[in-house]
Order: sequence, then C-alpha cells, then structure tokens
Amino acid sequence: MAQTHYFQPAVYHTAIGSHEPVLHIEPGDTVETSTVDSGGVDKDGNRATPGGNPQTGPFSIDGAEPGDVLAVRFDRILPNRPWARTSALVAPSVVDPQFVSELPSERGRGRWDIDLERWTATLAEPETALGRLNIPLDPMLGCFGVAPPRGQAISCATSGAYGGNMDYRGFRQGVTVYLPVFVPGALFHLGDGHATQGDGEITGTGTEISMDVTFTAWIHRKQRPIAWPRAEDDHSIMTAGNARPLDQALQHATTELLKWLDEDYGLDYRAASLLVGQCLRYDVGNVFDPAYTMVAKLDKGLVAPFRRTQ
Amino acid sequence: MAQTHYFQPAVYHTAIGSHEPVLHIEPGDTVETSTVDSGGVDKDGNRATPGGNPQTGPFSIDGAEPGDVLAVRFDRILPNRPWARTSALVAPSVVDPQFVSELPSERGRGRWDIDLERWTATLAEPETALGRLNIPLDPMLGCFGVAPPRGQAISCATSGAYGGNMDYRGFRQGVTVYLPVFVPGALFHLGDGHATQGDGEITGTGTEISMDVTFTAWIHRKQRPIAWPRAEDDHSIMTAGNARPLDQALQHATTELLKWLDEDYGLDYRAASLLVGQCLRYDVGNVFDPAYTMVAKLDKGLVAPFRRTQ
Amino acid sequence: MAQTHYFQPAVYHTAIGSHEPVLHIEPGDTVETSTVDSGGVDKDGNRATPGGNPQTGPFSIDGAEPGDVLAVRFDRILPNRPWARTSALVAPSVVDPQFVSELPSERGRGRWDIDLERWTATLAEPETALGRLNIPLDPMLGCFGVAPPRGQAISCATSGAYGGNMDYRGFRQGVTVYLPVFVPGALFHLGDGHATQGDGEITGTGTEISMDVTFTAWIHRKQRPIAWPRAEDDHSIMTAGNARPLDQALQHATTELLKWLDEDYGLDYRAASLLVGQCLRYDVGNVFDPAYTMVAKLDKGLVAPFRRTQ
Amino acid sequence: MAQTHYFQPAVYHTAIGSHEPVLHIEPGDTVETSTVDSGGVDKDGNRATPGGNPQTGPFSIDGAEPGDVLAVRFDRILPNRPWARTSALVAPSVVDPQFVSELPSERGRGRWDIDLERWTATLAEPETALGRLNIPLDPMLGCFGVAPPRGQAISCATSGAYGGNMDYRGFRQGVTVYLPVFVPGALFHLGDGHATQGDGEITGTGTEISMDVTFTAWIHRKQRPIAWPRAEDDHSIMTAGNARPLDQALQHATTELLKWLDEDYGLDYRAASLLVGQCLRYDVGNVFDPAYTMVAKLDKGLVAPFRRTQ
Repeated sequence: MAQTHYFQPAVYHTAIGSHEPVLHIEPGDTVETSTVDSGGVDKDGNRATPGGNPQTGPFSIDGAEPGDVLAVRFDRILPNRPWARTSALVAPSVVDPQFVSELPSERGRGRWDIDLERWTATLAEPETALGRLNIPLDPMLGCFGVAPPRGQAISCATSGAYGGNMDYRGFRQGVTVYLPVFVPGALFHLGDGHATQGDGEITGTGTEISMDVTFTAWIHRKQRPIAWPRAEDDHSIMTAGNARPLDQALQHATTELLKWLDEDYGLDYRAASLLVGQCLRYDVGNVFDPAYTMVAKLDKGLVAPFRRTQ
Repeated sequence: MAQTHYFQPAVYHTAIGSHEPVLHIEPGDTVETSTVDSGGVDKDGNRATPGGNPQTGPFSIDGAEPGDVLAVRFDRILPNRPWARTSALVAPSVVDPQFVSELPSERGRGRWDIDLERWTATLAEPETALGRLNIPLDPMLGCFGVAPPRGQAISCATSGAYGGNMDYRGFRQGVTVYLPVFVPGALFHLGDGHATQGDGEITGTGTEISMDVTFTAWIHRKQRPIAWPRAEDDHSIMTAGNARPLDQALQHATTELLKWLDEDYGLDYRAASLLVGQCLRYDVGNVFDPAYTMVAKLDKGLVAPFRRTQ
Repeated sequence: MAQTHYFQPAVYHTAIGSHEPVLHIEPGDTVETSTVDSGGVDKDGNRATPGGNPQTGPFSIDGAEPGDVLAVRFDRILPNRPWARTSALVAPSVVDPQFVSELPSERGRGRWDIDLERWTATLAEPETALGRLNIPLDPMLGCFGVAPPRGQAISCATSGAYGGNMDYRGFRQGVTVYLPVFVPGALFHLGDGHATQGDGEITGTGTEISMDVTFTAWIHRKQRPIAWPRAEDDHSIMTAGNARPLDQALQHATTELLKWLDEDYGLDYRAASLLVGQCLRYDVGNVFDPAYTMVAKLDKGLVAPFRRTQ
Repeated sequence: MAQTHYFQPAVYHTAIGSHEPVLHIEPGDTVETSTVDSGGVDKDGNRATPGGNPQTGPFSIDGAEPGDVLAVRFDRILPNRPWARTSALVAPSVVDPQFVSELPSERGRGRWDIDLERWTATLAEPETALGRLNIPLDPMLGCFGVAPPRGQAISCATSGAYGGNMDYRGFRQGVTVYLPVFVPGALFHLGDGHATQGDGEITGTGTEISMDVTFTAWIHRKQRPIAWPRAEDDHSIMTAGNARPLDQALQHATTELLKWLDEDYGLDYRAASLLVGQCLRYDVGNVFDPAYTMVAKLDKGLVAPFRRTQ
C-alpha cells in the first residue's frame, strides 16, 4: 500500500548523477521533504551546503528500470521562509552584444519579502524606481531530474534529456512530470525553488527560496522510451526540449509532442500537424544556462477527447 | 481633421520596399481596406495576384521621416470569407533532424470552414482522427511592415527591423504596433491574414484567409529611433526581435524592451532587470522563415504606474 | 567572338538588386573595371559614393535566364592604391557576452601601407605592441552577387543564395564562382575589396581597399538550378552557405557540395559521404553580418578523377 | 628525474570524470600507452570494452591543483592495426532539413585498409563509385580531457571546457595541448583515435582505429586559470571552444585567443584585434555531437616575436 515518507535532507548534490540514494520508495509512494535555495541556504537562513542549485535526493523509486518512464506529481511546492533573493541584472547573453557595455557593471542583488497569506512577493531592496513592487507568487522548482545514462553526473547549472535546470514556471504545484529512466531506481533529484520567475530566468535567478515539497512517484512501462521530459496539469500537456540554440530545444520539444500525440492520443503525424499548426503554444524556460529550455504545450481540452487509456 | 479612406487594392507586392505608394494619408487618418490571403486569393476565391504573402499598400503616411516612429492601430482585422487553407505538415526544420524521415513525404493541404457567427474554424479536410476539429478564431495579420533602409526590398517570406513576416498571433485587432521609419512616408504594407494560428507557424501556414482591415496611423517623434517593432494592447506591452537563431531574436526583443522601459517608463536597466527577472513573458512568432520572431512581453498593469506622458 | 570591355564605374549600389544594368555583355566576354573600397573611397583617396560596400555594376550577361548558372572567373583582383583601412577592434558578437565589457570602448581605425612590389601590408597606425607588423597580401572581393528573386534588393551588409557580403578569402584571383540566376541577365555586382583578411572578418573589416578587377562571365544551363554559390580554383572545389547561425550556413554548404558531387562527379550520397567524412574541409567566411558564411571545400586532386564532362 | 611509464590499459571509461586514477605520474614524466577504437575494439580486433569513445586513463599528474594548467604533448599518435572503420553516411544534422529525406535510409559502414608504410588509408568497402579511394593518413585523437569540476562525469559523446570529444584533426602528433585543471591530479583521459578525418566529423566518425600513444605532461601555474583548451605545435597557436551553436563555440575560441595574446604575448585587445582581423584562421572540429568545436588559430611565425618568457 502506498506510503508517505517524511524525509529531512542532510546531504545535497550540485550535479545530477548516480549518487547513493537517500531513500528508497515504492511506486505510488509519497515523499514530504524540503529543498534549500539555489545558494544552499535553508528556511532558517543558514547555509546548509555550498551553492549551485543543490539538490535534495536522490530518491530511488525501486523497480524502475532503464527504458521506463518516471512519473512525479508535485503535490505541494510551498515556500517555507518569508524572504527570497534574486540577481539584479539581466545576463549579457540575453541582450544584443553591442548593448552589453551599456549595462551596469555590477550584477547586484535583490531581496524580496514573501508573504504566503497575501500570496505576494514584494521588492525590499535595492531601492529603484520600482519602489516596493508587489507581484503574485507562483512557486515552482527550477531544477529536478533523474540520473543520466553512461555513469554521467551533470552540473545543476544545465539541463538535458534527464531534466536538470530547466527553470520553467509551468513546473509548479499540481503538475505531473514524466522523465525517461536511465538507471535502476531512476534516482530522482529536486531543488532550486523559485517563489516566482519571469520567462527565461534572464537575470540568472528567480526569486530564490527554500521550499517544502511533497511529491508522489509512479513508474510507467512504455512501448518505447520517451526522449525528453513530458508533463501535464489540469490545463495542458507539455514537452520540454533542452539544448542550445533555442531552435534546437524547440525541435526536441516539438518532436516529443508529436510522438506523444501519436502514441497516446492516436493522432498520426498528419493529424497532429493540423492540430499543432493552429493550436500549439511555446513557452520559454531557462535561457541563461549552457542548455536552453523550450516547452511545447497544447490545451488539454483540445486533446482530451482523443486520449486513449494509457 | 482626421479622415477615413476606403481603399480597394488593385496591385500587391511580395517584397516590402520603396514601391510607389497606393495612397497618401495624413497622421491620424484611418484606412479601411482588405488583404488577399498568402496565396493571393481574395474573398471571392479568385486569384487576384501571385502568392507569397502579397501585401496591400504601401500607404504613405505623409510627414513621416527617417528616425520617426510609425504607430499603426489595427482597428479591425476580420476574415471576409467563410473558408481558409492551411498546410497539413510540420516543417522539417522544427523537428529533430533524425525525425525528418519519419514524417509523411507530402506536405498536403488542409481546408477549414470559418464561421464568423460562432467565431470558429472547423477542419473540413483532409480526413484524419481529428474529425471536424472545432477551434476558436483569433484573427491576426502575419506580415506587415515599412520600407526598409538603403533602397532595400525584402521578401515577404522573412522579417527584420522593419517588420515583415513575423506571424505573431498577438498582432490582432486592438493592438497598436510601432515601427521604425526608414524612408519618407514610412510606406506601410500589410497582408497575410490568419483566422487563427499556432505559435511558430510551424506548418508554414496559419489558417490562411483574406481579411477586411481597418487601421489608423500616427507619427511619433522620439529622441532616439527605435530599433525593433514595439506594440501594445489593453493587456501588454511587447517588443519583437526578428533573426535566427531564436536566441538572437530573443536578444533583440529583450534589448528593445529594456530601452523602452528606460525611455518611456523611467525604469533604468537596474530597475528593469528586477522587473523582467520576475515578470517577463516570451512569446514565439514565426519559426519557419529565414528569420525567426521572438516577442518579449510585460503585463500592462505592472508597468502602467511607471508610464510617463509620452 | 568574346570581347573585352573596359568599364569605368560612375554609379554604385549598396544593395544588390534589379538595378538598371551599367553594361550588357555576352557570355564569354571579359570586363576590366574597378571597385571602390567599402567606404566608397576610390584609388585616388576621393569619396566617390557613400559607404556600405558600394558595388560596381550590375552587369547584364545577356541571355542568362532564371534557373541558369552564372559562372564568373576573377582573372585579376589587384589593389590599385598604396593604403588600406581597417577597423581596430573585434566585434562584440564574436566574443563571449561576459567579455564584451573588457574590450576598449572605441572601435578605432587602423591604417595599412600596401606595397604591391613586396606584396605586403604593413601596419602604419595606430601604435601598438605590434609595431609595423608586416603581412603578405592576399587580395579578394568581400562582396559580389546577382540580383535576388521576387524583386528584392538586399543590403550589401548581408548575404544569401544570390551571393552578397560573404567575405571569404578564398574568393581571390583565379577562382571561378558559380551563382544561381534569378532574373534575365543575372545582373552581376561586385565590390568590397580586401588586400588581405582574417577568417570571419571579425573586426568588421578586412584591409579595405579599392581594386582593379577583371572578370570573364559565362552562362551554364543545368538540369536543375543550384541553390547556393559554388566555386573552384586550381586547388579546390567549394560551396558557400550563408545564414545564421553558422550551423545552418554549414548545412547549406554541405548539402550543396553533396548535390554537386552527385550531379557532376557521379558520386551518389553514399560515395560522397565516405569521401567528405575523411576529406572535407570547412572554411569560415563572414561572421560579422546578419548572415554568416561557411564554405565546404574538397581538394581538387581528390575529386578530379570522377569529374564528368560538364 | 623525468620517467617514462609503460601503461597497458585494462579498464576504460565512456565518461570523463573523477574516476580512480590508473597511474600516478610526476610533472615531466612520459607515458607510453594505447587506446582502443571508438567502438571499444583493440589492435587485435577484440572488443576490449563497450563502445562510446572509451578512454584510457585517467592519469593523475600529481601536484596539479585546480586553477593550474595541464600541458600534454602528444609525442606519438600511431595507428597500431592495419584497418579502420567509418560510418558511411553524413548525419541528418549537417544537411538542410528538407534534404534529409533524400539521404539513404541506412547509415551503413565503411572499412578502410591502413598502410603505415605508404602512410595511406584505402577504402576497402562498401563498393561505390569511389573504388579503392586512397588518401594520406593524418592520425589524431578525437577525444581527451581532464576531470570536469563539481563532481561531474560527462559522456565522451560531447565536449566542454575540460576537453572531451572535440574531433579536431589539429590534435595530432607533435601538438601540445593545455587544459584547465579542475581537480587534484587533473585526471587526464584519452582515446577515440582516427587514422584521418574530415572537418566536422560529419559522418559521426573518422577512420576509427586503435592507437599507440606516447605523451608527456607538465603542470603550469598561471596568474589566472585558462577557460578553454589551448594548443600549439610548430606551425600554430590554437584555442578550442566547445558549444552549440558554432557561433558560440567561435565566441569561446576567439575570447580565449585574445586572452592568451594579452597574457603571454603582450598584445592588448587593441593590438590583438588588428592582428586577428587580418590573420586569424578558424578550423571546424566536431559538428556531430551536442557540443560543436571551433578552433581559432594563428600562425606561430606571426606571434613568436611577441612571445614573453612563460
């Protein structure tokens, strides 16, 4: 019977790889745990570990085998402290090369007050013409993934087929993500919470914050492995491609969506083309890291009628 | 006093350039006109001109000078016939290279019924698992722009600082677009209407249709010229970058937005960074043409409080 | 019978398009003419025309029709004055974004003495640790091409299938270039001479200089049109792709080379793959303009044995 | 005193990372060893290990510390068997997307006879119009590098700042490569020998072969760490950037060259710009993997006069 595990992390990893599992769970189990912020700072403001998007985990979902799909539903992603940090300058890589030298020379830092009752982030510093800018929260996890193949361990400053630092605001509470399994147990990592974040994470940060996270994990056996992360929530089905340039990330996301529509919705590439040609949405994830993230998205109401029993 | 001109096009251009103006108007004037579809077919189903996104115009907005900004509000963009055509296959350039040979070998064509009462597009052919898929209309213009500098005339199959074939669904009725003026009179062209369109125009078409279009044009003198198209509607302010790869289009759009926030909203690059880092949205326009289009967008409610008198 | 025409230019164009021909010639004819430098300055140091890679021409090669191939042999490309100018700073677009602000803020200018007897360029100013750096000449034309299709006129600050500002040092005296013909007469333009140039033209200039140029032109009828510029000299066969990113320029150049090997050398895509996999060379042309240039090259000695009668 | 170590590998790695060193050496020591081919096949034709560019090593160069530079001179890179394998088809990613479906559907394999006396590779199969094509050998190592930072282990199917699968034909016998040290001992790996290879490795292979390799390693302390691989031989100084798109690889290589000229040749960015603007050469390494490789190169004769004592 499905269990709920309470897990308090003590070690963290800044690369996603085949590290020793911190916990073994069964498919269907739920884990209540927490993540430190991208700088390694916990809910009490203590530096728990060095920075670099330190990950909680990995969790072994026992029985998962290479070729399977790991499904993880984020049941809860909730900031667990009342403040967050951001960078205070757009990255030189997201502006025109000849504009770079017009930017301030110091990257700087912002600090935001997080109010879970009002569900707002309020700019506390630095002082700028924005004053105490007040914006709604939209908590999400910037980085999560499974151990990549070939014995690799890959920095949490980038992403790939295994997930990683995708910084997509659609990876919020209520979403279920599907990841290809490359090693026994899948070895799921998670971290890098943002209280809110603009598309692209173009300052190199969201509003970086520690989180309480609850997730439930399952294993799906598919006829053929998936190649890139998939996800769905109440509104959309989504696929994520991670690569640079964005054109290539877009190719990955689009291809994965076409395959998904073919496999699980009975829409061959002709039917799917007619659908996406008129209805596709692209969202931009991280455009700060070595690999960029593009998400291809379809309204669930559009595709639900074609859904086959999985 | 501002006038309304009724203009029935007789010639069309498939390149945007310094062609002879079809009409001279004054700043503040309104033009009611029409556009043929991307294949040159008009509202009666007659081929009025060869295909290739033929443009109505150009219209000279008298008094516009290089360095000015042309503001065009699309007062109405309304399909004027009950059917539209689409391609029926995603482009090989938007999928993984090794996936290309899995696509059907023929591009094929779709035909859609357009119902202005119910405000829907319904797939009429080919027959696929989609059946008579029914989707809402969201009419827009895929291609418009002003004469580029240096005596250039540039194919309507691409885009640049002057506008062109951006295929962005946000360029719908109610939006005001701002374009840099390169030649006296600006020479505004418009065409390539879509009854609706998915992001990226990844099949190479939207639901291609002829349109009735009404627009009003003004000239703004700015302290310094704008570099890329800007736009706003009730919900958002937007900037469009046109280039390949998408990374570069994104750089153009981001830079233009930062400049706009600095010039007209009193937000220096530090303040703007803090804002866009948490609140920016990117939308993807055309990713089918030689130049791709990326739009950077901010919620108008967020920035309106900072707006200076223009 | 083939004629030699002596042509002294009086007008120049900074866009390549369907301008009025300055001279009509027959296939097989030779033209002796001259080009001003990229800034419009002639051999006497006078500004003959505004800058922007002004082109001599266009020359109509009478009888050329769309779908044909224009062959132009550069019989002579010889600097006709003893000095040249360069930019003195690498472009921000060719270095890492975070490095841009470490570059000097002023682009600056260099001046070089050109000695045709010693066949050298010598740095005259500014004063740097290089002193009077002395390098061999390798004269070339940075920009040439034919009128593009669809009534387009395209700035000499970029390139495409029609040629344009490719800035490839392999386009030197002795080379024969092959260009797709899009309009009757082909309308050949040429200009932007460099006494020598590093790969990529990464400072935005070569050693800019006016030239005496002699060329001979022919028309080839092919079974199918070529898609991108081809070229050959005593050492190599070459194809040029023009696009951004470089990856795409490389795709164009590689595809064109494979087609050429198939059509004129009897090497199908299997045989050609085995050849290029071990023997291909890539050269980098312009990486400063909106479109970049990549050249795919094979040793002529390798392919000559397979050459069919053209 | 410098020693020569004879090392016969027994284990291999298909990811470059902080694996247990197979041998500890001192700076100045020489290692004579061997590498299997990319498929894991040794000089006797036996599969010694699974494929995927298996690496010999890692070798710990004791005393190397993060921030240092590891210098490795390839004293000998010599094929040790009389045959090599290649792929027989260009990759879909290096041709135009719309051309992909014109390629043969099977990748296929080539086999080449390697004659060390005549110093040639001869195509043995398949049968094509090339017959028994005969080309000169130019042995090189496609993949080598040091353990990357942050506990990473990265697949030998890609490359980065630490080296990796760069597939640059300039990494041949006689070259000295300089790599940034990220972990104590540097942990040098090497493998993926090619008897010869075209630019880009666009079929996904060179002529894959096992090698006898001798190298000598030193440690250099620099004032600031290098960011990307550097190299030199009798003819050139070179820097390698690894990223996608090629534009970004080119940015890395160019930046690294400018820094090198500043640090070790006394040429500030102004002087260096004037030099590279006229004299730079770019070479293309791997354009098959997730990361592409671009090499920036300068003639040693040009820069030697400015060289400071290191």
